[in-house]
Amino acid sequence: MRMLDIIAKKRLGGRHTDEEIAFVVKAASDPKAGVPDYQLTSWLMAVCCRGMDETETAALTRAMALSGRRLDLRALRAPKVDKHSTGGVGDGISLVLAPLMAAAGLVVPMMSGRGLGHTGGTLDKLESMKGFRVRMGNDEITAQLGRIGVCMFGQTQDLAPADRTLYSLRDASATVESVPLVVASILSKKLAEDLDALVLDVKIGSGAIFKNLKEAQALSRALVKTARELGLKAVAVLTAMDQPLGRYVGNSLELVQAVEILRGDFTSADYAQCLLTLGGWMMQLGGKAKDPKEGAAKLESVIRSGAALESFKKMVAAHGADPRVADDLDLLPKAAMKRDIKAPQAGFITWLDARKVGEAAVILGAGRANKDSELDYGAGFILDKKVGARVKKGECVARIHGSDPAKMDEAAACFVTALKIEGRKPKPMPVIRQVVK
Amino acid sequence: MRMLDIIAKKRLGGRHTDEEIAFVVKAASDPKAGVPDYQLTSWLMAVCCRGMDETETAALTRAMALSGRRLDLRALRAPKVDKHSTGGVGDGISLVLAPLMAAAGLVVPMMSGRGLGHTGGTLDKLESMKGFRVRMGNDEITAQLGRIGVCMFGQTQDLAPADRTLYSLRDASATVESVPLVVASILSKKLAEDLDALVLDVKIGSGAIFKNLKEAQALSRALVKTARELGLKAVAVLTAMDQPLGRYVGNSLELVQAVEILRGDFTSADYAQCLLTLGGWMMQLGGKAKDPKEGAAKLESVIRSGAALESFKKMVAAHGADPRVADDLDLLPKAAMKRDIKAPQAGFITWLDARKVGEAAVILGAGRANKDSELDYGAGFILDKKVGARVKKGECVARIHGSDPAKMDEAAACFVTALKIEGRKPKPMPVIRQVVK
Repeated sequence: MRMLDIIAKKRLGGRHTDEEIAFVVKAASDPKAGVPDYQLTSWLMAVCCRGMDETETAALTRAMALSGRRLDLRALRAPKVDKHSTGGVGDGISLVLAPLMAAAGLVVPMMSGRGLGHTGGTLDKLESMKGFRVRMGNDEITAQLGRIGVCMFGQTQDLAPADRTLYSLRDASATVESVPLVVASILSKKLAEDLDALVLDVKIGSGAIFKNLKEAQALSRALVKTARELGLKAVAVLTAMDQPLGRYVGNSLELVQAVEILRGDFTSADYAQCLLTLGGWMMQLGGKAKDPKEGAAKLESVIRSGAALESFKKMVAAHGADPRVADDLDLLPKAAMKRDIKAPQAGFITWLDARKVGEAAVILGAGRANKDSELDYGAGFILDKKVGARVKKGECVARIHGSDPAKMDEAAACFVTALKIEGRKPKPMPVIRQVVK
Repeated sequence: MRMLDIIAKKRLGGRHTDEEIAFVVKAASDPKAGVPDYQLTSWLMAVCCRGMDETETAALTRAMALSGRRLDLRALRAPKVDKHSTGGVGDGISLVLAPLMAAAGLVVPMMSGRGLGHTGGTLDKLESMKGFRVRMGNDEITAQLGRIGVCMFGQTQDLAPADRTLYSLRDASATVESVPLVVASILSKKLAEDLDALVLDVKIGSGAIFKNLKEAQALSRALVKTARELGLKAVAVLTAMDQPLGRYVGNSLELVQAVEILRGDFTSADYAQCLLTLGGWMMQLGGKAKDPKEGAAKLESVIRSGAALESFKKMVAAHGADPRVADDLDLLPKAAMKRDIKAPQAGFITWLDARKVGEAAVILGAGRANKDSELDYGAGFILDKKVGARVKKGECVARIHGSDPAKMDEAAACFVTALKIEGRKPKPMPVIRQVVK
């Protein structure tokens, strides 16, 4: 079998056999296979243009999951659940959800990623707590899960190495937006986590990979179907990512948001709703509630009891950072400078473009322009007004946190382009758009 | 401008601006541009899948032609003409055509390539003459053209370097069969030769890049149209490549064929017809004949006068090899062993698959399995019977020339799969299929 023939077959719209898929995955996970990157990207682009059917997608996912060493969580009694988001701006929900679900009696082995471009990454947010360690081996992860029920870690060398290679090549070759490739990338890692159930948060809108409902629905259906085919219970929740989620964008700022919610302060309504919907489904799939509504109610009481915040502290301590951060948010990194962004006119905010806000965050150093960018953990935005809010001319709509006045000027200018203020109150934009079961 | 955005645009079916095309060509010709091969192949595959329109194709061709230093033949009075074949099996016509056209008063700056896979390469055939030098600088090429009117050389470092990079990446990433990419590759090199006119031999059939008439027609039209748009007179002749051309397949064997023709022995009828048709068009486009028929007649008399053979000798000497080869074919490399391939049954030969014969030649070492393969110059096939011939059971249909009995066995077995013998005489297969002006 030759890589060239496999590429040519897909270019012509052919359907790959399991053996061909296995050949590609081997090529991506083993440098000794001798298949150069420029052949892998040619194949990736052919897949983007010609697609893959369900059988091919499942075969690719399975082969990628098996390309490394999986976690082995059979010794743990409680159901193993996880949530995966396709990525957005202000989406720090994992920071709350992981310790919350552990407090509710589930086991959460949560492998997360770093931010790139306008989207943030859970690992970066966690690392804004000094000393928080996310590089862990499989044995250590398993042990921590046994002890406290939650572990948040980066993709190890061992877990789905084929995905690591293909993901970085996709990112560097403009082959990200392909349903079968996205499905295989997400699910291969989740299968390697030895999960029982998975809730998928599929973002739609300007700040998401997929901009429109139809594409997001197609991705959701493919995710749920492929997961089931591979023996993993799954539900996809389509959620809005036209404006940033919650009230904070930035690494330590999103930790502030997380701690506020864990303390029972639900003022960020869209964030809380998203959290409880996703968590409610995890409760149902994990057998802790008869339906997601009951699950959400249980989670609210876990939060109000203080158990979720306690679980968060245990997790922070287990990863080597200072758990007192949960009691004293001043321990988090802070920006040296703050500045208000004022409404250029009176009216209703009708649009607050998530992607542009994410790009403004990159300018500030809160996100990464490229893989090697240094982060400014304290930088970001606090959104005082979101879509639907009425503002007076000159009223503060958002506050910039940063450390470089020139970058803050540039970020403020970018932020303003994200904002639309009009005379009529806009229709409400629901955060939960659809559930695909 | 970023390569990633350019790739993404083409993936979505967008139309490139001249600036985007220029960016890609710069990336392919200048390693300092820092664009990795895996981005170039991703773009190449996007072009294969999404296509390019005429304007994009012309822009790509022009930018590639200008990516290096062109020949400057303005000092030469005679019209500069060339022929380009899209490649086939047994197609050694350039070996005759280049010196023949020079003898007819035209200037022929012929840049040629090497064989790869089942197709042969003119440079390899020339190099089967010991000492024949094809690596030449622009100044040397120009001087030789001034002196004897013909020069056959390999692509220099200077000429269309963007094509050199893209061609080798296409070959290695299964992105060869794309009309706009083929057009730009062929014409950029020809434009860099500073030609007045170009005749294109577009092969159709099992041994050609394009297997069917429709695809070959589309390529021919795109070639002629783009050439004209860039100020180059051009005609495309579609010729059959279902069976090998002529009676010889192999490097020194095809030189034998060439010398036979140059001596006026036209027994290889399809080869002679192809030669005189292409040459006839070159005569017309070069202003030496009022139509291709008159051009062909003039060329026949140039051959019969001995002037063509003389031109060949001058050319061989100018490139550093021994011109006596034209008088004594025994001076060419010869295979150590010969063996007959016999008809397994009686009947008419109805099929002699060019691609399979080419693959059998690779097994013998007459062609290259990969770029670094060593060639056996004497190896190949002499085809005693071609499509339409009546054979008795056990009669010799072809002779294998080789140097390794095991490989000869394997090549013979491959050759037999190329052959179909049936009871009914097949319809004649014309070698000239169509002319696209």
